[in-house]
Amino acid sequence: MYALLRFDKTYLSILIFFGGIVMTILSQFESFISQLKLDGRYRTFIELERLAGEFPVALWHGANGETAPVTVWCSNDYLGMGQHPAVLAAMHATLDMSGAGTGGTRNISGTQRQHVALEAELADLHRKEAALIFTSGWISNLAALGTLGKLLPDCAIFSDELNHNSMIEGIRRSGAEKFIFRHNDVEHLDSLMRAVDPERPKIVAFESVYSMDGDISPIADICDVADRYGALTYLDEVHAVGLYGAHGGGIAEQRGIVDRLTIIEGTLAKAFGVMGGYVAGPSLLIDVIRSAADSFIFSTSLCPHLAAGATAAIQHLKVSSVERMQHQRNVAKLKGMLQEAGLPVMDTETHILPILIGDAHRCRRASEILLSDYGIYVQPINYPTVPVGSERLRLTPTPFHTERHMTDLVTALSEVMKRLAPDALTTAA
Amino acid sequence: MYALLRFDKTYLSILIFFGGIVMTILSQFESFISQLKLDGRYRTFIELERLAGEFPVALWHGANGETAPVTVWCSNDYLGMGQHPAVLAAMHATLDMSGAGTGGTRNISGTQRQHVALEAELADLHRKEAALIFTSGWISNLAALGTLGKLLPDCAIFSDELNHNSMIEGIRRSGAEKFIFRHNDVEHLDSLMRAVDPERPKIVAFESVYSMDGDISPIADICDVADRYGALTYLDEVHAVGLYGAHGGGIAEQRGIVDRLTIIEGTLAKAFGVMGGYVAGPSLLIDVIRSAADSFIFSTSLCPHLAAGATAAIQHLKVSSVERMQHQRNVAKLKGMLQEAGLPVMDTETHILPILIGDAHRCRRASEILLSDYGIYVQPINYPTVPVGSERLRLTPTPFHTERHMTDLVTALSEVMKRLAPDALTTAA
Repeated sequence: MYALLRFDKTYLSILIFFGGIVMTILSQFESFISQLKLDGRYRTFIELERLAGEFPVALWHGANGETAPVTVWCSNDYLGMGQHPAVLAAMHATLDMSGAGTGGTRNISGTQRQHVALEAELADLHRKEAALIFTSGWISNLAALGTLGKLLPDCAIFSDELNHNSMIEGIRRSGAEKFIFRHNDVEHLDSLMRAVDPERPKIVAFESVYSMDGDISPIADICDVADRYGALTYLDEVHAVGLYGAHGGGIAEQRGIVDRLTIIEGTLAKAFGVMGGYVAGPSLLIDVIRSAADSFIFSTSLCPHLAAGATAAIQHLKVSSVERMQHQRNVAKLKGMLQEAGLPVMDTETHILPILIGDAHRCRRASEILLSDYGIYVQPINYPTVPVGSERLRLTPTPFHTERHMTDLVTALSEVMKRLAPDALTTAA
Repeated sequence: MYALLRFDKTYLSILIFFGGIVMTILSQFESFISQLKLDGRYRTFIELERLAGEFPVALWHGANGETAPVTVWCSNDYLGMGQHPAVLAAMHATLDMSGAGTGGTRNISGTQRQHVALEAELADLHRKEAALIFTSGWISNLAALGTLGKLLPDCAIFSDELNHNSMIEGIRRSGAEKFIFRHNDVEHLDSLMRAVDPERPKIVAFESVYSMDGDISPIADICDVADRYGALTYLDEVHAVGLYGAHGGGIAEQRGIVDRLTIIEGTLAKAFGVMGGYVAGPSLLIDVIRSAADSFIFSTSLCPHLAAGATAAIQHLKVSSVERMQHQRNVAKLKGMLQEAGLPVMDTETHILPILIGDAHRCRRASEILLSDYGIYVQPINYPTVPVGSERLRLTPTPFHTERHMTDLVTALSEVMKRLAPDALTTAA
């Protein structure tokens, strides 16, 4: 950009002409940003400093250097494992033993003992033959769906309409033909599959817990349909692993239907408290993804101590249900309190409690007031993450939220909702 | 997969039919893997255990549980910063202070003080207005090129033919029209740009150091051409940041032409020893990428302690040239020794020293013998990473390789090359 505005004798006239193009480019980008702001969709990141041992309280850092403690109500560190002593001890020990990064892709000096151990742990968690880790859940879906759909000639992928962006990107990347079925609509899935040539290879891709509405898919019914048409099944459990099932294997484990899924995709960054993503499934398919996915092949591998930390979290949650039980108790308690206060909480089956606001600007304003006046942080969720008109504050209670935290939240939310009621707003404006 | 092979009374006949399809799917994947093996392109990961303080020596773990120390000659932890005390101290301290993961995307509770500090450090390093970090360099390129090319209507992207996979994916993702210019060929770039409508927005995307040949691009000449046609310039410096320039700002800093690049992309996973990637550039463009790139928006952010570790590495290499000088000395020394021994080392300008083997199977075999008989680990680089016929062992000397390591390597390589000479092979076969 600077280069383009640079003065140069020889190219003066040319530069003036192309200066015009540069101005056009700049104005394209400027109007993109302006439009986001007009729509109330421009994202301002809230700067936090997490405090191990204080979760869910964190230190908020303001634009002018001021700080204040805030209670975080929108973290996906669902069980607070990001501060668990066993996780941190494993990470410290591995940092001491093996250092920071790996210095390589998995193929070029970057496969570490800790990766192999984590992959074995994950395969065991989901009772699959093998697993493969990635630097993020986003990449897991891109790599796995992108590869499987690409390598199966004339593949048809059936995708729930509310699937996560990373699954959509994976399917797009695969080049396979995509069929979108209505959210959790088994009949619709069946009718779409029936219309496709029986001999084409097929994949049904869906999630167990949908993160924005907190609902759960009819996994067994979807698998019935998939079986009927000889399709592979691909289940994203990122909002469920660690949280559901006797060993934290997710909704599929809880329902005793793990063996009905060809591939389970999960994350190390939510209930397991670290970062990275993975897929677990039959050895052959994992080998194919490992061998063909560019996003896997050409990325530096996860730091060994991250793999060790994740392994510690998984191992802990395999044998301990204390966190899951306290989590569910807190979810039930908060939901009851919100309902009692007449707040518009969606009645979900899971740990995700969305408060419907229904307007981008109001949603953003509610979040701002909660932060500035009440020391409560909950991020507004606007379009495109959720449809226009269903903007929301998405609450995620953890085992570490106390009764006091909940009372404060409900009081604050009630007051803010009153202040921002449409007629109150009109008066204020 | 298991689901598909499950026996079910009702669907017995259907299952038998679709069992055939499943077999077809399996055989598709099986033949994909078989073909890789036939071509000598099947990747077997070497399992290592990095030992902080012992770099470049690591512990090799064999398939049967045996271990042996090996000298690693193919790490991209180019300066050994992965074991640097300042880096590890920053990571330990931040783990203690802030815990493991962030539990959120940058927008939803995942922006941490350490991210903001790192981005300021990176903007300063490259003398740009702003910077943005990602969970990997691969994602940096996907997100940045994907977004800029997409948001500029009718954009034309000019891409060096040897650009990294992640740049190619970013350009593809953008949907912009792509024009590939011959490697480092400024004339060709000019002729391609001249033929495109002057009013179309344009981006020229290239690298400074190409990682497989170790050559450097004519950055200033390419910027001249870009200026002539009013194009933005996008430079990937992942194999140069930390290593070149008085402050480790890369080749652009070394040549004093940082201000000629619109965007510089880099990595935290090579010379800076941790993991993650980034772009630095004008605030407006960084804001656009931040606001529009799905792969950024929908990924959990980098762990705070990783950001802190990377910041420590960058700060150290901004003021210390000891590592860079020792690095260059070792590169020069090893290159001289390889040439003297008559080994087919490519005469590169950089720290990357490829030994040309020219055959996938021989390349793999050389690597195997070096590992099993000499305790030396250097990964074979085969197609598709390099063209068929240019298979190689890619050596990356670090400041921590001793004279003894080098002597051992040269001796071993000489012996292995003799053992694997085409006529020796014929006799052996």
